[in-house]
Amino acid sequence: MATGNGTLPTLHPIAGFKLGTASAGIKTPGRKDLVVMEIVKGSTVAGLFTQNAFCAAPVAVAKQHLANVSPKYLLVNTGNANAGTGEQGMTDALQSCDALAAATSSNKEQVLPFSTGVIGEPLPMDRLIGGMPAAVAALSENGWADAAEGILTTDTRAKGASLQYGTDSKITITGIAKGSGMIKPNMATMLGYVATDAAVDAELLHRALRLANEKSFNRITVDSDTSTNDAVILVATGSSGVTIDEESFDQFVSQLKTVFIDLAQAIIRDGEGAGKFVSVVIEGAVDTDEALAVAYTIAESPLVKTALAASDPNWGRILAAIGRAGVTNLDVNAVQVHLNSVLIAENGARASSYTEEAGQAAMQPEEIEIRVSLNRGQIQETVWTTDLTYEYVRINAEYRT
Amino acid sequence: MATGNGTLPTLHPIAGFKLGTASAGIKTPGRKDLVVMEIVKGSTVAGLFTQNAFCAAPVAVAKQHLANVSPKYLLVNTGNANAGTGEQGMTDALQSCDALAAATSSNKEQVLPFSTGVIGEPLPMDRLIGGMPAAVAALSENGWADAAEGILTTDTRAKGASLQYGTDSKITITGIAKGSGMIKPNMATMLGYVATDAAVDAELLHRALRLANEKSFNRITVDSDTSTNDAVILVATGSSGVTIDEESFDQFVSQLKTVFIDLAQAIIRDGEGAGKFVSVVIEGAVDTDEALAVAYTIAESPLVKTALAASDPNWGRILAAIGRAGVTNLDVNAVQVHLNSVLIAENGARASSYTEEAGQAAMQPEEIEIRVSLNRGQIQETVWTTDLTYEYVRINAEYRT
Repeated sequence: MATGNGTLPTLHPIAGFKLGTASAGIKTPGRKDLVVMEIVKGSTVAGLFTQNAFCAAPVAVAKQHLANVSPKYLLVNTGNANAGTGEQGMTDALQSCDALAAATSSNKEQVLPFSTGVIGEPLPMDRLIGGMPAAVAALSENGWADAAEGILTTDTRAKGASLQYGTDSKITITGIAKGSGMIKPNMATMLGYVATDAAVDAELLHRALRLANEKSFNRITVDSDTSTNDAVILVATGSSGVTIDEESFDQFVSQLKTVFIDLAQAIIRDGEGAGKFVSVVIEGAVDTDEALAVAYTIAESPLVKTALAASDPNWGRILAAIGRAGVTNLDVNAVQVHLNSVLIAENGARASSYTEEAGQAAMQPEEIEIRVSLNRGQIQETVWTTDLTYEYVRINAEYRT
Repeated sequence: MATGNGTLPTLHPIAGFKLGTASAGIKTPGRKDLVVMEIVKGSTVAGLFTQNAFCAAPVAVAKQHLANVSPKYLLVNTGNANAGTGEQGMTDALQSCDALAAATSSNKEQVLPFSTGVIGEPLPMDRLIGGMPAAVAALSENGWADAAEGILTTDTRAKGASLQYGTDSKITITGIAKGSGMIKPNMATMLGYVATDAAVDAELLHRALRLANEKSFNRITVDSDTSTNDAVILVATGSSGVTIDEESFDQFVSQLKTVFIDLAQAIIRDGEGAGKFVSVVIEGAVDTDEALAVAYTIAESPLVKTALAASDPNWGRILAAIGRAGVTNLDVNAVQVHLNSVLIAENGARASSYTEEAGQAAMQPEEIEIRVSLNRGQIQETVWTTDLTYEYVRINAEYRT
């Protein structure tokens, strides 16, 4: 199950950034499961990583390598997360960097490793290393679509976004992401790789990444479970010849956000068992923390999510979620709740204009907006989520078996 | 679905405390749905109520009445929560107190109202009031078992606990509770009514209630959703002639806790769609907050809960939940995780002694203990929860329809 249109859009190549995909048989024979990305010399690279204390070995290694040198290769495998693997996991992550460095005449610190898949199984090193030559041989600036497939786990669709902006001097931004379950970002989420041909210095690039990430990958939840392997990488090759400076920065970030939000929403549309794409919009909050507390309490409530699955306008569960979100001195009589354009609750009760028919009708579309007006401040925040279906339970009960 | 033995135990009567149950047809014709409890003069009464900001009208009224006078009647209806009902809800709650007061020649402030069921529908006042004479006529010290049925909503079983202690001068404690979904206590939870024939002054009784509640109803979660209607009431009639003083207080609290924990566990055993009864034990924590943060993060993780439903020893998901619980400076290598008696993870990885067969075997029983040793302090806490099954989704998708 998934919502919306799952077709991969045209992914414009980024000069100076190549992707190569292979089938290494890491978990399932014949499946694309190994991706190598090559970054041209002179590029800048920024990354954000999971804050889970049990972060995976590749996350620890990638963070360390990124702090030391400018990366030349990104190495991604799916099928195995190399998380919860202790000492052995660190050794394996480092050895995989070593192997790719040897195959490409580079240094192992120039390789950032990423793994996604089952937690707690040792990485099958010979299959991983055995697949590298094919992935390296496939490196191409047109490799985006294959790579978008090669990083998937329980995802049912490849996810990509791409745009070009500017008139005389055009800038291109292209990205891919994977994620479907264990989605509750904290700093970064799942795997995302975005590249641009703009030239952006390291400090500006990192700032742009944080800003775009904050309003995209940090605004989605499927099941409130933060992954051990989340990472998002932003590469600027500079090959367009256009340099981003303080003056052009805001426009760049705005375009970057568009790509990031597209990718983040694609993850929600492909959320495990998703039958609905749900935007939870909180407005009139005093500050961002308060807005997000209410948004996530609604978006993660199993009772709200099962009602969404049933297309049941059970607004009482939404009020109950708002009420337990921990907002100080909340005036419940000032709160208004809309389902799409239908006002369902105000003055602490069902709206007098509300009819069950209007509520039922509002719940039928695949895309639902739950809009909560707290009416006590100026801040608005949006979080995207899915419903909770039988299919979610089935996928996650059967994942390992 | 439910776990364990669902037979209601012998519920010893409490002299001075009567219960009367009737079928008022509030939601379903013929179902026991109205309970009146009568408290003998001279009793003390303590209560704890939900902290949900959208608390139901009866909760607001019960709190206010309890603050003003010593209650003589408790009035409970199921089928309708009278929550999210605004002004009308308050009027209805007060009017229902008035009606019972009129039928029993008492004062409306001496009545505490409680409602449970669907949120956001107006209370059917004529049916509620129409049922009162039958409930009053049925008042009896032997009315516990009928009342245990009369307060249920989606529960599949009546829940009660009862004990007697002391040699020469015996004290009896008996209680009933209801709750199955929307279970994540905050101060108190769902509905619980416990009475004792000990004499306990108001201050000691309230302290005893807080202590017993903290380790029982405040240690359970089905779906992390705090209800709008939670309340637990403790009545001491004094009819045994035994007075609880500072000296006998600890023993009284210890016995009271036994009854409270029995009731709280009965709610989890009857949790919506429950296929497993799961104890999450955190030991070696620095403080209670930290222990509970880890315990609830595990107990509420949809991924851990679906793995439990599938009897899948997916310890990686448990590690991931521990890792995102927000424990400061957690040394992941010091953490040990047991499933029942099987050590499944240590040193940040699968335990070397672990076998998949042992893990599978540990997951088969209906009762599972997940024990996490943080090995950084002396505090231990336990939280009880259920798995997340298809049945949970079905019940909550179909509840209103």
